[in-house]
Amino acid sequence: MQNRLCTYALSTLSLCAAVFLSSCASQESSIPIGLATQGSFAVGGSFITHEGTFSKEHFLSPEGQKAYGDHAYVFYQIPVNARPLPVVFQHGGAQTKRTWESTPDGRDGFQNLFLKDGFAVYLVDQPRMGEAGLSTVPASDANPWARSPMFYSETYFDLCRLGDENGLYAGSQFPEGDENIEAFQRSWNQYSGELDDDLNAGALGSLLNKTGPAVLMTHSMGGTIGWRTPWYTRNVRAIIVLEPGGTPFVFPKGYAPEDITATYAPLVATAMEVDMEQFRPLTQMPLLLVYGDYIPEKQVADPGQDKWRSELAMARAFVKTVNDLGGDATLIHLPEIGITGNTHFLMAEKNNAEIFSVIRRWMHAKALD
Amino acid sequence: MQNRLCTYALSTLSLCAAVFLSSCASQESSIPIGLATQGSFAVGGSFITHEGTFSKEHFLSPEGQKAYGDHAYVFYQIPVNARPLPVVFQHGGAQTKRTWESTPDGRDGFQNLFLKDGFAVYLVDQPRMGEAGLSTVPASDANPWARSPMFYSETYFDLCRLGDENGLYAGSQFPEGDENIEAFQRSWNQYSGELDDDLNAGALGSLLNKTGPAVLMTHSMGGTIGWRTPWYTRNVRAIIVLEPGGTPFVFPKGYAPEDITATYAPLVATAMEVDMEQFRPLTQMPLLLVYGDYIPEKQVADPGQDKWRSELAMARAFVKTVNDLGGDATLIHLPEIGITGNTHFLMAEKNNAEIFSVIRRWMHAKALD
Repeated sequence: MQNRLCTYALSTLSLCAAVFLSSCASQESSIPIGLATQGSFAVGGSFITHEGTFSKEHFLSPEGQKAYGDHAYVFYQIPVNARPLPVVFQHGGAQTKRTWESTPDGRDGFQNLFLKDGFAVYLVDQPRMGEAGLSTVPASDANPWARSPMFYSETYFDLCRLGDENGLYAGSQFPEGDENIEAFQRSWNQYSGELDDDLNAGALGSLLNKTGPAVLMTHSMGGTIGWRTPWYTRNVRAIIVLEPGGTPFVFPKGYAPEDITATYAPLVATAMEVDMEQFRPLTQMPLLLVYGDYIPEKQVADPGQDKWRSELAMARAFVKTVNDLGGDATLIHLPEIGITGNTHFLMAEKNNAEIFSVIRRWMHAKALD
Repeated sequence: MQNRLCTYALSTLSLCAAVFLSSCASQESSIPIGLATQGSFAVGGSFITHEGTFSKEHFLSPEGQKAYGDHAYVFYQIPVNARPLPVVFQHGGAQTKRTWESTPDGRDGFQNLFLKDGFAVYLVDQPRMGEAGLSTVPASDANPWARSPMFYSETYFDLCRLGDENGLYAGSQFPEGDENIEAFQRSWNQYSGELDDDLNAGALGSLLNKTGPAVLMTHSMGGTIGWRTPWYTRNVRAIIVLEPGGTPFVFPKGYAPEDITATYAPLVATAMEVDMEQFRPLTQMPLLLVYGDYIPEKQVADPGQDKWRSELAMARAFVKTVNDLGGDATLIHLPEIGITGNTHFLMAEKNNAEIFSVIRRWMHAKALD
């Protein structure tokens, strides 16, 4: 009896959720979320074994014991009546899946916006980061992104184009208030091992081999991870990249531009060249790249702004290469379509629902929904 | 018009969820979850400032920059028509909020079981752990829990009473299969700074000052964090502790037992004594302590089993002290009520819905629902 009641309640709830999701997708945080299920798991990874023999007399000694690590951590949520393709979210450098959750001022981030629009979401902490902190190799002592305390408040503020010594840039979409800047500063994280883009792409590939066909969304240093993921799985149907940069763009041999420079050389945009066969998958699926505001067209003294000038130039060369080779890449520089004031974290700012709509329209045009 | 449609859909969905939650709370993973909202934030924490002056010419240098850290990361979910008191979940040592999510074999963990029963949940990564990885102090080089690779596969297997060199103990509730053991091994994590129980309790206190009155659920080394949290907030209404141990039990001065020993001395149960006034809050709220199976009554050679024999003895002394002082503490040793085969991770095993029911009955008896 209880089972039948539940089946009835389940189908009624599903119906309600379906009506509601289709009629209210553009509404905001008052909308509830009907989840069929949610959970978490580790995917990918390896282990190494210490020499010697384990003994209960030396209970806390490493001898003969295994160290597991290098897996990704994944938190997933499947809405009732989910759309066919899930969205897999890959964060950027020194970040975690927290990137996609609440905005600094506590509103819905992309996790909730996609869920409320009926997409299943898979949020990843990449290997050696966040809740996937176990690593089979130690971090280098020289790696400042793997060391606490991490004295980078000004670097992050400038590098992410939030503003300058006078505070937020004029017209910024970043939510005002010291408490929101503090939330931004506390959203970073430290690595527990060296950054390994192929390890990370391999873990994403293993994840997509579990999920089936999916849309991949990446941010910032996650860019190169996304470009490489098709080497590890056939299930990438599209890649949406928010402000790729900080890790190499991928080009076929002979196609990478060689004339891109930046004021602060260590932060200049970079490229890696691969065989045409390795590049091919990127010409066989729709790609969307999105960049925000405060990116100058000509070289400037500010290292953060100028870094993103070099990345945007590299992105344009990448998009041209993909399309020249028969692919379908779109680059949206938000100010060019009248959306101004966005920083590097354009998915988490005051107008993030508008940016979500821009992405959703593209997804609809590419039949990804 | 759209807003009114949404309001209607919202109230209909709420109604469906209410009917469904009240009629089906004992059913399992086919039940959907109706969320009013969810999100994440950082709470607590501090920052320190490096000497010198920040300069954009030395963009990646720490001079003059702040390092934020020591906050907790919190992921929360509020179901439609939530019960009055949320449950705040504090993980154990070298773990994260992942403790409370899916079981190793992918079924509902306590996060989902409480949500489906109508409780709001707040899942914490304690300071210097998981997605709260930024620390204002470095970890000690000598700290094996803050270092990758972490060669502790056998230690964890034995210490958590999963089994011995022949595999899982006979009758174990831990899900069979190498893939589940591997999921267990990959659920651990490394600290990015030293363990500081008062820092962690302070962050939990800050969280409860935000949530309002709440039930606190802790696991293992989270035990002492829970005992100390009432020093930082008035909002702890009850504490449910799964297998406290590995960090000190709290006693009033003169009450801590002095005769507890263990085969492997570094792992013996410990106690700390505080002024009676500091202890008082623990006598003014209901407390529930739960221990699983494979805990012998007399000293044995196995370091994992014997450690928990010492912890259970300490827990009994703690419960007697609380009750002698007019408090309301209950200790459930599961085998004594006929529930056998549980390891240290009793919330994530084959019979976790049954253990959830045991806890829920106690919560109902204490008017916490």
